[in-house]
Order: sequence, then C-alpha cells, then structure tokens
Amino acid sequence: MSTLSPMSTTGPHSFPQQAATDFLHQAADLIIEKAIKEGCDPSAPVVDFKHPQELKSLLNLELSAKPSTHEELLDDMKTIIRYSVKTGHPRYYNQLFAGLDPYSQAGAWLTEATTTNIHTFEVCPVQIVIEQYLVEKICGILGYQNGDGLFLPGGSTSNTFALHLARFQAYPEIKEKGLYGFPKLRMYKAEDAHYSLKKAASYVGLGTDNVVLVKTDSKGRMDVADLEVKISQDKNNGYHPLFVMATSGTTVLGAYDPLVEISRVCKKHNVWLHSDACWGGPAILSPKYKHLLEGSELCDSLAWNFHKLNGIPLQCSALLVKQKGLMEKANKANAEYLFQPDKFYDTSYDIGDKTIMCGRKPDGLKLWLQWKALGDEGMAARIERSFDNVRYLAEKMSKTDGFKLVTKEVSCTNVCFWYIPPRLRGQTETREWWEEIKTVAPKIKERMVKAGSMMIGYHPMSSRGLVNFFRTVINNPNNDHSDMNFVMEEIDRCGRDL
Amino acid sequence: MSTLSPMSTTGPHSFPQQAATDFLHQAADLIIEKAIKEGCDPSAPVVDFKHPQELKSLLNLELSAKPSTHEELLDDMKTIIRYSVKTGHPRYYNQLFAGLDPYSQAGAWLTEATTTNIHTFEVCPVQIVIEQYLVEKICGILGYQNGDGLFLPGGSTSNTFALHLARFQAYPEIKEKGLYGFPKLRMYKAEDAHYSLKKAASYVGLGTDNVVLVKTDSKGRMDVADLEVKISQDKNNGYHPLFVMATSGTTVLGAYDPLVEISRVCKKHNVWLHSDACWGGPAILSPKYKHLLEGSELCDSLAWNFHKLNGIPLQCSALLVKQKGLMEKANKANAEYLFQPDKFYDTSYDIGDKTIMCGRKPDGLKLWLQWKALGDEGMAARIERSFDNVRYLAEKMSKTDGFKLVTKEVSCTNVCFWYIPPRLRGQTETREWWEEIKTVAPKIKERMVKAGSMMIGYHPMSSRGLVNFFRTVINNPNNDHSDMNFVMEEIDRCGRDL
Repeated sequence: MSTLSPMSTTGPHSFPQQAATDFLHQAADLIIEKAIKEGCDPSAPVVDFKHPQELKSLLNLELSAKPSTHEELLDDMKTIIRYSVKTGHPRYYNQLFAGLDPYSQAGAWLTEATTTNIHTFEVCPVQIVIEQYLVEKICGILGYQNGDGLFLPGGSTSNTFALHLARFQAYPEIKEKGLYGFPKLRMYKAEDAHYSLKKAASYVGLGTDNVVLVKTDSKGRMDVADLEVKISQDKNNGYHPLFVMATSGTTVLGAYDPLVEISRVCKKHNVWLHSDACWGGPAILSPKYKHLLEGSELCDSLAWNFHKLNGIPLQCSALLVKQKGLMEKANKANAEYLFQPDKFYDTSYDIGDKTIMCGRKPDGLKLWLQWKALGDEGMAARIERSFDNVRYLAEKMSKTDGFKLVTKEVSCTNVCFWYIPPRLRGQTETREWWEEIKTVAPKIKERMVKAGSMMIGYHPMSSRGLVNFFRTVINNPNNDHSDMNFVMEEIDRCGRDL
Repeated sequence: MSTLSPMSTTGPHSFPQQAATDFLHQAADLIIEKAIKEGCDPSAPVVDFKHPQELKSLLNLELSAKPSTHEELLDDMKTIIRYSVKTGHPRYYNQLFAGLDPYSQAGAWLTEATTTNIHTFEVCPVQIVIEQYLVEKICGILGYQNGDGLFLPGGSTSNTFALHLARFQAYPEIKEKGLYGFPKLRMYKAEDAHYSLKKAASYVGLGTDNVVLVKTDSKGRMDVADLEVKISQDKNNGYHPLFVMATSGTTVLGAYDPLVEISRVCKKHNVWLHSDACWGGPAILSPKYKHLLEGSELCDSLAWNFHKLNGIPLQCSALLVKQKGLMEKANKANAEYLFQPDKFYDTSYDIGDKTIMCGRKPDGLKLWLQWKALGDEGMAARIERSFDNVRYLAEKMSKTDGFKLVTKEVSCTNVCFWYIPPRLRGQTETREWWEEIKTVAPKIKERMVKAGSMMIGYHPMSSRGLVNFFRTVINNPNNDHSDMNFVMEEIDRCGRDL
C-alpha cells in the first residue's frame, strides 16, 4: 500500500501519475470487497449503530492544514464503510431503496469518471443520446405516443416540475408575470399521497393551503367521487382546479390509484393529471403486475424513481410528460453562453433548456447499463420476485398469531403490520390497548438496530388514526421466502417479552 | 473475462456471487485505465466527435428482451468511454467543470456503493455527520458565526432555494397562503449574472418580469449605484424589493461583485443578499485570492459549486445560510413516516426536513475525501495554480498579435478573447469587421473538436453588444504554462487561414 503523500500526485501534467491510479485501484478493491461484498453478506450486520456523538469521534472528521497519505485515506474509507448502513444487505427493509445491483453500480462509477453536465451535446454526447433513448423506451411502456422526459434529482423534484408544467400549460404568462392577477390555483392529492406536493405548493408560490386532500378507501386509494366533489366545490368558489396528483404505489400502504377513473374527472374539468409513480411505477415492466398502472397513458405526466424498486443507486428519477415540446416552452431561457445556434451540429440535442436548472447530473446511464444487463425479461423478473415475496409474507402474517396487517391485502411491495406481543394478544382493542401497541415497534426497532440484525421502519398514520406500525419494504431481488420467514422470526424474537 | 450471463448472478441470496464481484472488478479496472488514465493523457484526443445520428449507430443503444453477457457489457462501457468527452483531459477548457481529482472520484464511488438518502440519521449516519462537519467548516471560512447549509443538486437549485428562503423570511405566511394578496416581490441581479435567477423567478411563481437587471462596470461587476436607484424606484412604485443576487465570479467574465458595498444597500433597504459564488467561491480558500470574496460574511446566503473550480465530480453544490434554523422553518412538513419523534437517538440529526425535496443524494463525502487528501494547504494550492495559469495566459495574450482580450484584466480563472486571423489584423474595427470576427470562433471550434485537439467554448454577449468570443476556462490543476502556450498555438493553427 502506498504511503506517498497525495500532494506528490498533483501538479503540472502529473495526473494520472502512477501513484494516483494505484490509489484508485486500491480504493475500488476496498469498496468492492468491504462495502459491496461484505455489505451484502447476510451473516454480517446490516448496521453497526453508533449515536451521533460517538460516531463523530470514531470518524476522523477533522480537516487540517496538511494532506493525508493514501494509507490514511484508505483507512478513513474503511471506517466510513463500517459505520454506513448497508442498504444492499438482505436484512435492509427500511426504506424504498434497497438491493444493490452490480450493473447500475458500474454505470454509476462510469458516470463519475466521465463526469459532465447533461446540458449540451458538445460536452455530453453519449449520455444525451442514452437519456433520449431511455425516455422514448419508457414513454412507449407508458403508452405515450409522442412523449418527452428528463432525469431529475429525485421524486419530489419531479413532482414539483410536473406542477410547474401544469401551471405553464394553463397560464403561460405566469412565467413572466408571476402569479399576480391570476385566479387562485388548486391542487388535489389523496390523504395518503406523498407530502412532496405540499412542499411543491409552498415552493412554487401556490401555498400549502391550496393543496386539497381527497379521501381514500380502505386500501388507501383515492376516492374518485370525493375528488370530483372537491373539484366542483372549488370551481363554485371561484378557484381554478389545476393539478391532480394521483399515486401509483403510495409510500406507506403501497396503494395504486385508479388512473382511468381519475382521468375521466380530470378531462371533464380540464385538470392536469400527474401520477406519482415514484415507488410503484416499475410494476408496469411486468406482464403479471402491469395492470396496476392501467391508464398510465391517460396521465399528462408521471414520475418514476428508478432508484427505488429498480435498485439503481440514488439518484435516478425520471419525469415523463405526454406532450412533447412543453418542457422547452415552459423553461426556455436561451442562455447565449450555452445554447449558441451557430454550432456545427444539430443543436436540438442541446437539451439543457428543457429544465428548470442549468446543470444536471446524467442519471440515465446507470439505468441503461442495468437494463442492458438484464434485458426486458430480467427487468420484469427483478420486480416480480419482490411482488411475489411480499405476497408470501403478507399471507403468512395473516395466518400467524401476533401479526396484524394494516390492510387486508398488499398492492405494491411494502406491507404494513403491527406486532402484538404475547401478553397483549386476544384482548379487546381498547384505546389503552392501542396506547401499549404504539410503544412496541420503537422498542423492537431499537433492539434490531443495536443488534445489527435487521432494519425496518415504523411510524403512525394519523390521517387514519393508526398508531405506530411497521412498514416492511421488500425490494431486494435477492430476497427469498426464507428471508420473509426471518423478518417475522426476528421481530418476534425482539418483541415477545414486551 | 467472464462470459457468464449476468442473469445467473441474480436470484435469492446469490449476490454477491463471485461472477458479479468479478464483473465489478473488471469494470473498475476498465474505468480507471480507459476513462481516467487514457482520458487524462495529453497525447490522446480530448474528444472523438461524432454527430448525433452516427453516435446512435455506434453505441449499441437498443435494450432488448434478453440479457447481455458481461463481455458485451464491458464492450458497451468501452464504447461509451471512447465517445465521451474527456472532461479531465488537460485540453478541456470548455466548461466550468474540469480537472479530474482522484480522491473525490474515490469518494464518489464510495457514495454509490453505500447508496442512501441523506434525510434520516438511521439510514445515513456517516454522511450526515460529514455533511454537518463540512457545513460548519465552510461557514467558518465564509465568516458565518452561526450558519447552516446543505448540499443540493446544482447551483441553480441552490440559487432558487436561497430565493425561497428570502421570501419565507419576508412573509412566512406565503408558505401556506401562496403569493395571493401579498405585495409584488422584486429580485435584482447584474446584467452579467447567471440566468438561473430568471428560471428561479418563473419556478417559484414570482415571474421573470420581476427580475430587475442592474448595470455592470467595464469588468463586469454590479454597478452598486444603479442597484440602489432601481431598488428605490421599485419602492416608490409599490413593489417590495426582496432579493439581490450578487455574483462572486461571473459565468462569462469571471467578475467578483463588491459584496461590502452591495450589502450596505441591502441592509439599508432590508433586502436579502445572496451571493452566487458557484464559480468563483473557491478563491476564498487561498490566502492570495480570498480578498475577492471580501464581505462574504455580510451575505444572507451563498451558493458554492464544488464540482466547478474544486474539481469534485458533478454534482457537489452547497448552499450556505447565515441564519441557523431558517431552512427548517421554511420547509418543515413533518412527514410522520420519516421523522418520528419517538426514535431512540437524537432526532436533530434527521435533517431531511430542512430541504424542499424529500430524498437527497449525499454529495458531501466526495468533497470531504478530497479535502482530507489535500489538506487546507493543498486545497488552496489547487486553486492558486489555476489563478496563476490564467494570469500568465491573459498577460501573454495581451502581448501577442491576433489575440484581443474582452476585458483588460482577468478576475477569476476564465479569460475571454477574440482571435483575429492575420488577414483581419490592423484594420479599423467597423461593423463589417466584427461581422467577420463573429464567424471565426465557431469555425476554429469545429476544427479543434473534429481534430480532438482542444475544447474551448465561444459565445456572443449581447448585453454588451459583443460578437462571438472564446471563453477559456482554466480549472484543471494539472495544467501549467506550457498548456497555456498550447491554447494560443492551437487556436492560431486552426484559425490563421480564416
């Protein structure tokens, strides 16, 4: 291992000096062996938890005047890996991202090594062509005849961008004049839909009070009759109903809204229909589950986070738009230092003016490489394994003492449930009983995390008056039924004395 | 090289199968040798240019039903590398990002392998602690006593976020109510400042017409007297002056606005002062050049793109805010599925509610690793090399026939100039003469790109009535004076017959 000071590797024309590329080879080996191989090993812990203050002293945080040696840097990297949560580990069910995929991982590294900005063809030729190919492919899957799209830094950004497009479509002059003097615009989302629409409403100046919450049914799907009532009321009160955000796979319950019915209401009232398919969108890749997104072609826009169920490293979020040309019109600023018309190539490939930002990280390549590796069939199989696993898990829970499902059936690949310790089983579900149940999940979670044995999130859902329950997210394609059994055994092990 | 189908590497508990980690090792070796080592080799081309249609057929774009073998994937990666622009190459002067750094590169790969979301401590402990450390360090450098900050996906996003904070500070109720019923808000930027403020104004609903352009001086700096006149006029006309975006290092001319003087005007009229230091911010790391950011501590917020002059792979943009707590207040939505108060650790480390988005890629680690490798002294030296190089280049150009600088002196590390072919030298600069000059840069650019010898951007600047000129961006710390000589020789070689 080199102990050369890295400073000796900089300076005129010295890069790539052998020492620097040696360091990169060593770093890559370390990452592959420690973060990836060990990080995905079911016999190793999913987390080595330390409280913030402890962690600060374990990490060699301080940046000082002097350089570090390569050996010191590799040691720092080892410490970072050790205390990082292993999101590719087969016992990580905590969040909507999981399941490390080697092909998109390689694509991500390639993206970093060829770092560039996906705004002009002259600096980003390959990735622009790849992004456009992917957008066409995904539009085809959604049923958009002449769609468009972009990769954006995350689902909330994609949802906000869609809202911005809807507003531009309704009142193009708002771009120049601002909201002053235009009717008050209203947005609609189901009670269970993601909170990003509220943040979006605040950000784009429409205000969270103008986000109208629509009731949901027992599965967590939007109540379409209630949507229509609320749109009509708003119209009668002089508001302009602008934007409905449906959800294809809700964050907590995994519900898929009925897009066809919602679209009928939106068409009737001339309201933009966006689907937040960030979580559940990938179902459309599977012949077995694609019916969940029936009506996708009727949406004006749809957001899909490939860094969730598809297992691409964060960030990889696509916004697809039914109407080609709208993104340019809404965002065009013609910065003359970037988008010169007198270039020697076809400048329609300078796509940067479609966005709300200037620079943008090219997030498509890593998805393309995964898709290339797996093929359409493998992309479908990857998703189906998770759907099949979660159905096995929910079925088994419904038949096992001590597990109580929040909804009778699962829709996407997340399943929500309470664990009932033996001493609380078979009792009347009084207010006091629920007060006790509320404390169970946090205690089990703490035990699991401190043991490094498993990670599952819990939370209440006050819109439905529900106290803390577990949400197990199944999206690692390397999981099998034995892992599902482990989920239940481990929760029972950590919770039976509570 | 393995020819196993990657499909054989997926399935229950099969990852990390040997075949998958073998693939990752092969991919890493390929990236280091081809994209990085060859990509930075001055004797190799900086670009192998193909027009979009050619490129599409050279890349094996199509995604089909069936999987690819590892061998095929590695071949695809080779093709991608071949046709990607080599932004780490010593002849790449085209954009504000350049100069591949091995340490942040390793940090970027580590970020991908430990992929997670920087919203809650439970899933992102290490990177949250690192981001907070970096924010404190940078706030200290700026002179913020009790500042705060976040890494965001790009400079435009950071500028827009700052505008959103300023608006919240002025009228917190706009978060809930929207802009309806509040005074018309106005924003100010110099004519030469970045166009992102216009996009921001459109996005947040304030409208591009409410972005007031302030005059600039001969160096491209904001005319502070004109700023005050415009703010006063607006006040007299019933507007609310909200936000001044100063610039520390303008995109084209590299000018640094006088922050101390601007701050005086902002304080007097109670206007938020933001500095877009995305490009020129790093000067503050150097004892020799930090005077350029004099007054940084007077700004209410400042955006700094570490993926520009600091050489971190995209994206690495920090927004620093003088007032702690404001980001939470402006953005808090308390999503109960993420930010449960009954967690067993100190939930002040669950920082996700500071943002406008939900998920966020942790972009700090790669910067931290570079800083660790170089130390404060190395961070300064890295910047100073570019400042010194550009001063050498500008000095030499000012003394060389055929080169005409756009501004007499350079401020940041970009230099703008016209090349005058021999047949046009020594003539009166008539309108017709300029019409001829206008066509020179595009032709030289085309020749350089097609030869793969050098990449430099050109563009007009209509706000100053200037026709196409070159903007050479010097930010690769591995450049030396011989490279600066090459810049001039190559442009002369490609342009002398025009």
